[in-house]
Amino acid sequence: MRTTVGWQLDGSTATLQRTPLKRRDLRPDDLAVRVDYCGVCHTDLHVLGSHDGEGGPPLVPGHEFTGVVTETGSGVTRFSAGDPVAIGNIVDSCGECAMCRAGQENYCHAFPTLTYGGADRQDGTTTLGGYSREYVVRDRFAYPLPAGLDPAAAAPLLCAGITVWEPLRALGVGPGSRVAVAGLGGLGHLAVKMAVALGADTSVISRSPGKADDVRRLGAHALIVSTDPEQMAAARNRFDVVIDTISAPHDLGPYLRLVAMDGTLSHLGHLEPVTVEVMDLLVGRKKLSSAGSGGRPATAAMLAFCADKGITADIELLPSALVNEALDRLRRNDVRYRFVLDMSDLD
Amino acid sequence: MRTTVGWQLDGSTATLQRTPLKRRDLRPDDLAVRVDYCGVCHTDLHVLGSHDGEGGPPLVPGHEFTGVVTETGSGVTRFSAGDPVAIGNIVDSCGECAMCRAGQENYCHAFPTLTYGGADRQDGTTTLGGYSREYVVRDRFAYPLPAGLDPAAAAPLLCAGITVWEPLRALGVGPGSRVAVAGLGGLGHLAVKMAVALGADTSVISRSPGKADDVRRLGAHALIVSTDPEQMAAARNRFDVVIDTISAPHDLGPYLRLVAMDGTLSHLGHLEPVTVEVMDLLVGRKKLSSAGSGGRPATAAMLAFCADKGITADIELLPSALVNEALDRLRRNDVRYRFVLDMSDLD
Repeated sequence: MRTTVGWQLDGSTATLQRTPLKRRDLRPDDLAVRVDYCGVCHTDLHVLGSHDGEGGPPLVPGHEFTGVVTETGSGVTRFSAGDPVAIGNIVDSCGECAMCRAGQENYCHAFPTLTYGGADRQDGTTTLGGYSREYVVRDRFAYPLPAGLDPAAAAPLLCAGITVWEPLRALGVGPGSRVAVAGLGGLGHLAVKMAVALGADTSVISRSPGKADDVRRLGAHALIVSTDPEQMAAARNRFDVVIDTISAPHDLGPYLRLVAMDGTLSHLGHLEPVTVEVMDLLVGRKKLSSAGSGGRPATAAMLAFCADKGITADIELLPSALVNEALDRLRRNDVRYRFVLDMSDLD
Repeated sequence: MRTTVGWQLDGSTATLQRTPLKRRDLRPDDLAVRVDYCGVCHTDLHVLGSHDGEGGPPLVPGHEFTGVVTETGSGVTRFSAGDPVAIGNIVDSCGECAMCRAGQENYCHAFPTLTYGGADRQDGTTTLGGYSREYVVRDRFAYPLPAGLDPAAAAPLLCAGITVWEPLRALGVGPGSRVAVAGLGGLGHLAVKMAVALGADTSVISRSPGKADDVRRLGAHALIVSTDPEQMAAARNRFDVVIDTISAPHDLGPYLRLVAMDGTLSHLGHLEPVTVEVMDLLVGRKKLSSAGSGGRPATAAMLAFCADKGITADIELLPSALVNEALDRLRRNDVRYRFVLDMSDLD
């Protein structure tokens, strides 16, 4: 086994503790990656909050990170030591089902192996995430990090970015599309940048009129203040696609009513059950959809698009030792727009 | 005013009573129609059940009917006395909003005038439906009944038929599509006939294995018994479109799980709020949609398609005097597949 160090919840305290970790010896198709930057995702909060402290296995969060290959397994040809790479929230899949064959490993019928809290498909051990200095990953699920992308600001592309990219593409967003993004957090601000870069007429829906400057800076064309009934009424039936990234359960009705005839509300912000009034779907034959993460081809395409358009996340970079503070602030929505942990302090 | 006779709920009893009714004198763009056949729709049951007996205005149900023009207003050019016509569940709309201009009067932003229980746009009176011997309708909302369609069996096309036709077309169903229809009632059996005629590989999902003969007779290619876990498991992720016509609230999860990647569950059976697990949408980026009724162009296209393919409803024709019995049997799902009232007994 290899040894590294990371930030782990072991059940003895409520916070993550710096802990020595073991990684598997490299299999023929494995890479060892020095993790340089790891984004802090809402999912991390969710999993930490629902983690069964003393009962469950140790938990190391982190599933959007960038770093450098340090060693390769005997069969690896696509990567060499020194290559910059990026890793997202899935690290393996069955490879045989219709979804895997279609390049949608994120929807693998046998369920993909998650980057942390998953079960390794060969030895059954629980995967430990990217809040650590080293990760060992099957080469198929590492992506070359394109030159020109800042590795710290690119880390959130691997979860927040691909989560909004796949629905934007699947829903055909492009020049002429009318897109609104609800919720201007980690996912939302990347959805705005991507929709704008795809050529869409892009609006932001936010509770706060104070976001106007940010909205402009992100390239969006308008801000709709969701607490202003007149603005919401004026925006009814106006958007082909509404990307809803609000991370707390909320009434979908006001957002569905902004969707145009035959358009779609893509609900991406949380996993709680959602209830809708049928009339909000019926009038205008609207659609409610969701999506999660992305497959290998789409992830590679997203990274190439972001490199081409110069898109990365707006981040606040913190030493990894401040991970618990970052999680606390994320819990209070005190972040613009994504925390990224600098792992070099683990050396 | 004109006088006719119909079946009305006036609050004095729980059943519909044969009652003299008034119809407006013809406006320049009105037709007087002798109603020959009127379908009995689940909506009728729903509205009767929620009708506030003594408080509300008199109620005459019926919004899918066929008959013959008996008189035309001074400005009518498209119809003449003697023309066979069909009328559905909307009889007017604002004519000016984006939906009306797009030929989707059913989604009129100012709300369409319903065939019964609506408010006439000119005089504000409550519309009285087709369970009557005469109806007066604006010519724009009457459709020539194509030759070759049996007028009794064609009546249900005007509500049940168009309700399933619009989503089938909007979702692009055609040769090669994989379609499943859940619930084999008035809507469902027409959805099967239309999907088959559109060239789709069409299955029926039903609780009862006893429907196998009906399924074959309707032209469907397979029956999936929803109470058989093995059959449901084998059908997972298999259909581009699932048309859900089940008229009682039910768990949508098992039906969403039959939808293929990027496919749609079109929920048409009832108007109660629906709750879905986000994971049932997320895994496979599936869509939940709904639809209601149809616009004028789609209704005309649906009638032409049905005439071309020889599609009408499978009906049980009853004298209108048995309307209360028909409603009772519909309440118990004792119908294959639509009751139609023969109005000639009102003469």
